[in-house]
Amino acid sequence: MDEILDVIIIGAGSAGLAALREVQKRTRNFVIINDGSWGTVCARVGCMPSKTLIEAANAFHRRKTFDEFGIRGGEHLTLDIAAALRRVRGLRDGFVASTLKATERLGERAISGRARLLGVGRIEVNGRELHARSIIIAAGSRPVVPALSRAGSWRTLSKQVLTTDTLFEQEALPSHMAVLGLGPIGIEMAQALSRLGINMIVFSESTTIAGLTDPLVNAVALELLGHEFPLHLGKKADLDIIESGVQVCTGTEKVVVGSVLAALGRQPNIDDLGLETLGIELNEQGLPPVDPHTMQVGDLPVFMAGDADGQTPLLHEAADDGHIAGINAMRATPFCFARRVPLTIVFSDPGIATVGSRLQSLDPKNILTGEVRFEHQSRARAAQRNKGILRLYGEPGSGRLLGAEMCTPAAEHMAHLLALAIERSLTVRDMLRLPFYHPVLEEGLRTALRDLAAQLPATDESDLAGCEPFNAEALE
Amino acid sequence: MDEILDVIIIGAGSAGLAALREVQKRTRNFVIINDGSWGTVCARVGCMPSKTLIEAANAFHRRKTFDEFGIRGGEHLTLDIAAALRRVRGLRDGFVASTLKATERLGERAISGRARLLGVGRIEVNGRELHARSIIIAAGSRPVVPALSRAGSWRTLSKQVLTTDTLFEQEALPSHMAVLGLGPIGIEMAQALSRLGINMIVFSESTTIAGLTDPLVNAVALELLGHEFPLHLGKKADLDIIESGVQVCTGTEKVVVGSVLAALGRQPNIDDLGLETLGIELNEQGLPPVDPHTMQVGDLPVFMAGDADGQTPLLHEAADDGHIAGINAMRATPFCFARRVPLTIVFSDPGIATVGSRLQSLDPKNILTGEVRFEHQSRARAAQRNKGILRLYGEPGSGRLLGAEMCTPAAEHMAHLLALAIERSLTVRDMLRLPFYHPVLEEGLRTALRDLAAQLPATDESDLAGCEPFNAEALE
Repeated sequence: MDEILDVIIIGAGSAGLAALREVQKRTRNFVIINDGSWGTVCARVGCMPSKTLIEAANAFHRRKTFDEFGIRGGEHLTLDIAAALRRVRGLRDGFVASTLKATERLGERAISGRARLLGVGRIEVNGRELHARSIIIAAGSRPVVPALSRAGSWRTLSKQVLTTDTLFEQEALPSHMAVLGLGPIGIEMAQALSRLGINMIVFSESTTIAGLTDPLVNAVALELLGHEFPLHLGKKADLDIIESGVQVCTGTEKVVVGSVLAALGRQPNIDDLGLETLGIELNEQGLPPVDPHTMQVGDLPVFMAGDADGQTPLLHEAADDGHIAGINAMRATPFCFARRVPLTIVFSDPGIATVGSRLQSLDPKNILTGEVRFEHQSRARAAQRNKGILRLYGEPGSGRLLGAEMCTPAAEHMAHLLALAIERSLTVRDMLRLPFYHPVLEEGLRTALRDLAAQLPATDESDLAGCEPFNAEALE
Repeated sequence: MDEILDVIIIGAGSAGLAALREVQKRTRNFVIINDGSWGTVCARVGCMPSKTLIEAANAFHRRKTFDEFGIRGGEHLTLDIAAALRRVRGLRDGFVASTLKATERLGERAISGRARLLGVGRIEVNGRELHARSIIIAAGSRPVVPALSRAGSWRTLSKQVLTTDTLFEQEALPSHMAVLGLGPIGIEMAQALSRLGINMIVFSESTTIAGLTDPLVNAVALELLGHEFPLHLGKKADLDIIESGVQVCTGTEKVVVGSVLAALGRQPNIDDLGLETLGIELNEQGLPPVDPHTMQVGDLPVFMAGDADGQTPLLHEAADDGHIAGINAMRATPFCFARRVPLTIVFSDPGIATVGSRLQSLDPKNILTGEVRFEHQSRARAAQRNKGILRLYGEPGSGRLLGAEMCTPAAEHMAHLLALAIERSLTVRDMLRLPFYHPVLEEGLRTALRDLAAQLPATDESDLAGCEPFNAEALE
């Protein structure tokens, strides 16, 4: 190819495919280059297989509620972990196939190979040099792998030290496992594997988990997880491969497990990508400055999208990144996009979520907080799900909702409702104008809203938002 | 009592207690009169016991997903229905107790007895006449009971023809039961009893169920319920008490069951209440005109609240009614309250809900519809909950959301999110500005929003609301 392409997209993950969708609307003069397997991280090794495994784990775990419900025989249930993992892979294959459709008809415009930047507008792949007016870098990320105390060959360790890249490929799992890290993946997989019947132990250098910054919510989340498996927090865990598995040491603790799942976060795939050839200063992580509203790298015709930009590695953010990059790569002057309200969800049980501003980012002297605990919430009690806490942060005076952190039943649903409230700059009173059906878990949210509203100046008596609680458990 | 009271509240159910809360803030010169057991319908025989039974039924029903999840032994689970009902009563007792707290310290101001109006401002109870400046009628409702083909004594039939007043009091239940009626209670209890292992058969005179008016949603709901138990729709069922139980005949069908649950709706408790003494015209049901924004009866110092007013018998509406009546009973000129967005939820699985305007109330030529079916929704598939349909109705041009009807997983949560959107007069595009986390069931809602948005005029390219689907199952 001697001609100059309009766009080269590096990476065909979620961000790359979102960019492709927009680029394709505007030109046929592009290529998309992908290194390794086609199909997105989300579908192959991320969101979808993890949620599929979690559903099986939670279904099995619910047997602990059976006796109280009047269901007999729960103690005889067993879990066939090989079958559970086979189901994960079966569904996963379908999900991956669905993501391949986007590129399978591109013919020569879809290139398998490892791209390397040679400079602005220049790429080398499979020994060829390609030129383009714009380049979109959506090279994705990969799991951080832990250092080992003693050197070992990574190839021989594939069964001993797992990541999400390899976990779902296992035919079976050992009876004892450790998880390193209590970010979203660490929490989700530690709880799921524990609920599937594996003896889990968890190590985390951090004492705050899942991105929570509210100490009360963090404490509840830790307490609830700590009832399911031992947590060792605040210490670095060193790994040693030994005859019988992996030894994990923290100085005070030493345990041997069959394998370890490393859930230490994800790092952008930028090694050997040639970012230094762009002639723009890179930060300590080797990343160039990227404007999150345009996805543009400095003022170059280069865009970064998805996990590769080193920002929040979340599917919906990656999809937005790609959308923005795909549109702006074809424009002389990039559009500046308003981003969505921040939202993170950990699919644990109870779920953990943050919406809008986290507590840490707010001035503690200039916010009001509203709180609910779910121990006595009526619907949660009926469902044997009455655990957790939800905390709201609002602006004094106006009562405008600024953010929330929670570890609650139905957290994923509460979080979307609150995201809409925060996106629309709604106040606590606006939210109290909502009908809250009875009995729903959202009535717990209403309790927190009322707790916050009670700290605001009194308002119009003729507004139903002023309806107060009955203070009767059956009715909240 | 010779003095004139400020307020007499007739009925200490949810509406009466809400009124009491507001009256108590303004005066101590009131009485509240309750006929029969104290404690609300919701707590005693309504929302709470039904939801508690449903949770047990759904937990037991999930065993049918176990094999696919890799969980073995589900076929050996059994349900101890006596234990399930005992749990219902145990929790119910606590819920009832929580509602009693509101009146237990009132002393002489809480009167047990049957109140009868003698005219505006005059009540008779237990042979005494009471006078008050305002009267709040919150006398509640009771289940409609079916006529029997042959006369029988209701007292001897208490085991054969049940209502929600008696269902939860049963120590055991027969192996075969029929439900009459497919309103919310009929659907919820038919499905719950079926899932608890009882052979159910259901009769409904209406062919539309659960208040649905969208034929597509109604059809999906009927199809899904019809997979669980036989439905006989569109015919009146006659009951006959026979030796072995109850015979149910529709002309074409004749079945004998151990007992029948009558779920034919609720009727206001207005018999012998003396409404005719108010000197205001009553309608065919014997009800006076009530302004839903003030709860005032005509221009009299009389207010009606809760199920007694013959409008939607829903807890959250009853609570609002009582709140409004309690405030206005103490005012010279009543406040006019804006009511909340209409919201109905049936706690079936999938759930059935309507929000805002139902399809029937909209001009079919002047709306756009958006639709999603959940068969291929990724999270629903992972959870083995991939059944159902959600339909949205929007205003052409603006895309303002007007209403929704649905039979979907997580319907109760989707319904609250949509209620907020409709309450705030949001458009489809406003909703598409929301972050939709991945993978969540709300992404199904997003598919319906996008379906509707695609029928609107194109807008600003630089708005993330314009993000389009990947058309990859793993990502929607």
